[in-house]
Amino acid sequence: MKQIERLCIKATAASRALASLPAEDKNRALCEIAAALERRSSEILRENRDDIKDGKKAKLSDALMDRLMLDEDRIGDMAQGLRDIAALPDPVGEVVDGWRIPNGLEIRKVRVPFGVVAVIYEARPNVTVDAAGLGLKTGNAVILRGGSASLHSIRMLTEIISGALIDAGLPEDAVQLVESRERAPLKQLLQMKEYVDLIIPRGGEALKEFLVKNSKIPVIYAAGGNCHVFVDAGADVQEAVDITINAKVQRPGVCNAAETLLVHEQIAGDFLPVVVKELTRRKVKLYMDAGARKLIGKRFKSVEDATDEHYATEFLDLAMAVKVVGSVDEAIEHIARFGTGHSEAIVTNDLESSRKFTAQVDAACVYVNASTRFTDGGQFGLGAEIGISTQKLHARGPLGLRELTSVKYVIAGDGQIRT
Amino acid sequence: MKQIERLCIKATAASRALASLPAEDKNRALCEIAAALERRSSEILRENRDDIKDGKKAKLSDALMDRLMLDEDRIGDMAQGLRDIAALPDPVGEVVDGWRIPNGLEIRKVRVPFGVVAVIYEARPNVTVDAAGLGLKTGNAVILRGGSASLHSIRMLTEIISGALIDAGLPEDAVQLVESRERAPLKQLLQMKEYVDLIIPRGGEALKEFLVKNSKIPVIYAAGGNCHVFVDAGADVQEAVDITINAKVQRPGVCNAAETLLVHEQIAGDFLPVVVKELTRRKVKLYMDAGARKLIGKRFKSVEDATDEHYATEFLDLAMAVKVVGSVDEAIEHIARFGTGHSEAIVTNDLESSRKFTAQVDAACVYVNASTRFTDGGQFGLGAEIGISTQKLHARGPLGLRELTSVKYVIAGDGQIRT
Repeated sequence: MKQIERLCIKATAASRALASLPAEDKNRALCEIAAALERRSSEILRENRDDIKDGKKAKLSDALMDRLMLDEDRIGDMAQGLRDIAALPDPVGEVVDGWRIPNGLEIRKVRVPFGVVAVIYEARPNVTVDAAGLGLKTGNAVILRGGSASLHSIRMLTEIISGALIDAGLPEDAVQLVESRERAPLKQLLQMKEYVDLIIPRGGEALKEFLVKNSKIPVIYAAGGNCHVFVDAGADVQEAVDITINAKVQRPGVCNAAETLLVHEQIAGDFLPVVVKELTRRKVKLYMDAGARKLIGKRFKSVEDATDEHYATEFLDLAMAVKVVGSVDEAIEHIARFGTGHSEAIVTNDLESSRKFTAQVDAACVYVNASTRFTDGGQFGLGAEIGISTQKLHARGPLGLRELTSVKYVIAGDGQIRT
Repeated sequence: MKQIERLCIKATAASRALASLPAEDKNRALCEIAAALERRSSEILRENRDDIKDGKKAKLSDALMDRLMLDEDRIGDMAQGLRDIAALPDPVGEVVDGWRIPNGLEIRKVRVPFGVVAVIYEARPNVTVDAAGLGLKTGNAVILRGGSASLHSIRMLTEIISGALIDAGLPEDAVQLVESRERAPLKQLLQMKEYVDLIIPRGGEALKEFLVKNSKIPVIYAAGGNCHVFVDAGADVQEAVDITINAKVQRPGVCNAAETLLVHEQIAGDFLPVVVKELTRRKVKLYMDAGARKLIGKRFKSVEDATDEHYATEFLDLAMAVKVVGSVDEAIEHIARFGTGHSEAIVTNDLESSRKFTAQVDAACVYVNASTRFTDGGQFGLGAEIGISTQKLHARGPLGLRELTSVKYVIAGDGQIRT
């Protein structure tokens, strides 16, 4: 039997023990792991230094090196993250729905763990702890497969987690690591549909494409966000400027940042010169259609012509495409063509536009008079987030603890048979 | 551009129009289709005769020929099915959840259609009408791909549906048929993840395996049901007999019929002779382990020894495996090993056994003192059913109208930005 299959069988056995654990046992284990991380921080940092050394040799980018690097503060954040998860309500056991049918059978739909969840991620050691914590809280056994550049760090983190699980009286196989740097074990893992109930990727488009192609297990995808702000005729200009700047500039590198600004032609003359000035002052590179360029004159030399390619691009950077449209319908049409179904905003004071936009824009999150940047489990008040789903099956939008569970029907009778 | 891609683009356009249709428009269209089916029944029967003729030439089995065959009664049933769907509440627009976050943003989680749903089925013409009706009611555009042996019939049915959609003022592309008898267009369809949101198979294991292997689009699987009845120590013998007989015999060819009977050793002496007599009287072929055989003596000559292979088999026939176990834990263990996570029943009068069984058996539906045969959308009171899911993602158990929808977050503010 392959090593991966043995690991999966152990995960399945652990998942059965986890499924009926009361919340207080799971929460105690989470706090135990948090304490162990802080207690053993010097061991973590020692292993992390090896990853950093290897990363420098391999000439990883500054961004990758920053994600890889741990220090006392970051370890403290990981521990606090676990304590925050412990403080959240346990979704397992929640009675989602329930009713009685005419013959007296009592039907209850109850929230249960998935069973075994595999989290595939890049070289970010903190995801190890985050995924283990979310999985444990929701009663799932977790199989981790992190980026090979972080292998020293995540091996130590997993060892600490397993030790703390044993100390807390939980099955140590509740959290397991696929240790190899090779691709073959990952491909094997993606075939294990008898044992693994769900794959959650935490990473970029390349990882997602790899999983779409190779996984026989259901995957919850978190696609990129080509998000739009549409400023309607009659919107409050200052509010529209504030929302546009926030959606673009507050943190440009994330999926809920806006990438294209759509402007109704009736407000473009008033709005565009103001917003373009504010955006360029904040070093946002602009790609504008002819109608928009005409309205701002020749003052802004760094502005370039927009093409369909710009409209289709998730810049994840200080760059934005701008287009003037004739109506809310044209804005909706543009979003349908270029959007990725993540987060879309309208700034308007018109009730009909608002109704039309929210009804017809097909996205995980549709905003009226607010920044797209709020699409986030923490902001939504879900308490913890394992990602943002842009697929429509199972979960859409920020994924909290509930989205890491399934349901089971429990039906109680007193001898009913079907006639 | 491939023909399939054109069809998908038309479906997407239709889905956008369907998404915001009020229930009364959709219900009127459903009744319009029902009336058209009855009005044009002679055309349907003429096409169906061509399928029957071809089926006879191809020497299809009696079971397949029965599924293929239509008559006035069956057309009437299809029409009535549509009127029943029209009478159900519309799941679209339901506010599933809603709250306000500290900065005043109002978050609503609203039920919306998936968009485009493809239903892949075998040579059963009635699924055409059923799938079209369920899709339409839930605001989804539907792409149909039925078994090639029924192509004459389903082509005519789809033509009638499209005509009725036009008469009702709905987009005719809301329901489209992939007409080819070849496999290639189906394989192309399964790649169209930009356009198609969900695949629903209605068919056997071979179809499912084909879809697992080939689909890049999420699929809701309805796996087979290797269902168990466990008779605990101290159960009411007559109740246990009634439930076992009902679960096995009432309709043996369906997925919620029981396949294995597990009996606690403390009740086996009283229960087994009675139930075996009743089962054999109803011509159920039995495969029993040594412990069980010893208890029933030599009266029942047709009984054979049970092997692991019998325990793993979904007979879908008048056949049943029987095993004596030492405890509820052993029963749970057996179900974990051989079950398919469909429907599992315990007959007991012991509260602790009942709690343990419902908590630890991992299945879509877990019954206490009732027949497994109740796992059914109609019996559950869901009103309509497109299948029974044994996967854990999105939906588990009977799939009703709600399970054909996704959600969207609609967030209303008055200028909130993220700080």
